[in-house]
Amino acid sequence: MNFQPLGKRVLVKRVEEASTTASGIIIPDNAKEKPSRGEVVAVSKEVTELACGDKVLFGKYAGNEVSLDGDKFVVIEIDDIFGIIG
Amino acid sequence: MNFQPLGKRVLVKRVEEASTTASGIIIPDNAKEKPSRGEVVAVSKEVTELACGDKVLFGKYAGNEVSLDGDKFVVIEIDDIFGIIG
Amino acid sequence: MNFQPLGKRVLVKRVEEASTTASGIIIPDNAKEKPSRGEVVAVSKEVTELACGDKVLFGKYAGNEVSLDGDKFVVIEIDDIFGIIG
Amino acid sequence: MNFQPLGKRVLVKRVEEASTTASGIIIPDNAKEKPSRGEVVAVSKEVTELACGDKVLFGKYAGNEVSLDGDKFVVIEIDDIFGIIG
Amino acid sequence: MNFQPLGKRVLVKRVEEASTTASGIIIPDNAKEKPSRGEVVAVSKEVTELACGDKVLFGKYAGNEVSLDGDKFVVIEIDDIFGIIG
Amino acid sequence: MNFQPLGKRVLVKRVEEASTTASGIIIPDNAKEKPSRGEVVAVSKEVTELACGDKVLFGKYAGNEVSLDGDKFVVIEIDDIFGIIG
Amino acid sequence: MNFQPLGKRVLVKRVEEASTTASGIIIPDNAKEKPSRGEVVAVSKEVTELACGDKVLFGKYAGNEVSLDGDKFVVIEIDDIFGIIG
Repeated sequence: MNFQPLGKRVLVKRVEEASTTASGIIIPDNAKEKPSRGEVVAVSKEVTELACGDKVLFGKYAGNEVSLDGDKFVVIEIDDIFGIIG
Repeated sequence: MNFQPLGKRVLVKRVEEASTTASGIIIPDNAKEKPSRGEVVAVSKEVTELACGDKVLFGKYAGNEVSLDGDKFVVIEIDDIFGIIG
Repeated sequence: MNFQPLGKRVLVKRVEEASTTASGIIIPDNAKEKPSRGEVVAVSKEVTELACGDKVLFGKYAGNEVSLDGDKFVVIEIDDIFGIIG
Repeated sequence: MNFQPLGKRVLVKRVEEASTTASGIIIPDNAKEKPSRGEVVAVSKEVTELACGDKVLFGKYAGNEVSLDGDKFVVIEIDDIFGIIG
Repeated sequence: MNFQPLGKRVLVKRVEEASTTASGIIIPDNAKEKPSRGEVVAVSKEVTELACGDKVLFGKYAGNEVSLDGDKFVVIEIDDIFGIIG
Repeated sequence: MNFQPLGKRVLVKRVEEASTTASGIIIPDNAKEKPSRGEVVAVSKEVTELACGDKVLFGKYAGNEVSLDGDKFVVIEIDDIFGIIG
Repeated sequence: MNFQPLGKRVLVKRVEEASTTASGIIIPDNAKEKPSRGEVVAVSKEVTELACGDKVLFGKYAGNEVSLDGDKFVVIEIDDIFGIIG
């Protein structure tokens, strides 16, 4: 990713959560909700708690949506990331 | 639990409080209220005041509800935890 | 008390103030008001200004009401306690 | 006074300001206004700028009204006291 | 002046600005406006930037009006004083 | 550029983003939106994270629009810049 | 200028920006807008980033308007000055 976050920020690619149940039924309302999971794809030099490839959980309204190379990402402060899904 | 909280956070599993009185009568209003007790199931490396297994008391509206492995938890800042039930 | 407050908090048992005058007349409005006096029953390790047994004065709306062993208490920050009644 | 203020607080006894003019005429509106003068009657260990007996000037809405031994006082932060009347 | 300001405060005597123009015409609206100039008459021990006798300029709504010895003054934080008129 | 930013600020020249799609169709609404990309053209002495020529991404409403030599720029705090587009 | 700013402040004389276009046409709305350019005419001892004579750019609503010797100036915090026009 040709993006270098500044400050205490990381760049995250949202992971689309399954919008169907195990039995295959689509849940429309949930399908529209943006997931709050993602994968870290770029890390500021000031961030040591996270590395690229980490799966993270963060607040639904945290960070800023940005477009890079025609794809959508979230630039998010490390303080707004709840933790790492191991 | 495959979740590593970041910052000054812990992951807490809410403990459902009894929604019936000693004599077995269900109190409907109280039954709908989310309890503010829980058990610590994961701790950030930055948190030293608490350990997994601790039973804690916290504000009803503190923290963020998260779903992990189909189960519900609260990610909560250590400052929002009132204390440990011994 | 099996409760260990965290941070700069203490656990306080409210002292019910007399709701009758010296001559025994009940003052209804005042009787409903929660008193802002209490006795310290548990102290965080981070608090050195107070000890269990201290009678304290605090703001009427300070702290959080909690239930422990079927009894009601207030978890309150040391900064919200005005002083010790000697 | 059997009260030990905590933090950066002092206990002040309000001084009732004259509600009549020099010529003895009562000024009703002013008479109802609480004066913002008082005498320091107890000092927290953390306060070094003031001593018991000091006459002080403070904001009309600063501090908290408290009752001790059937008498009324103000518990007030040192930062809310404008100065000492010499 | 028998007043010792506390904290980062000074006591200022407002200087009434001319409410008439050079040609003697009274400007009623302006006449009612409180001037924001004054002379420093007492200084807290914590204030080193100003001395008694300094003419200062300050925000119209800064500070607190106080009465001392039947005269009116402003108790004002040093941060709210724009500068010294030389 | 004859402008020296003060504090933690940089001067940025906005980069107009393409308001037409690959097939040449104009998208009116998007065309009116101000892009949040730009090129750094002047840097305060207090800023070390960025250099002139860096392409940056920043919040749509961050910074202050200024006119210099008949051209428009944004003066923006380093904290409001998300990162560098490499 | 007989004015010594206090704190992190400077005294600025606004520079009236041209309210006519190159071809001489008056633009009424713009003409009423106060310019956000000025020249530094006095500097607090605490300010080292600026000197008298510097042309500066600042936010339209920053600082406080003051009258000195019948002339109008702005007293403005150094943090509200965007930069120096070289």
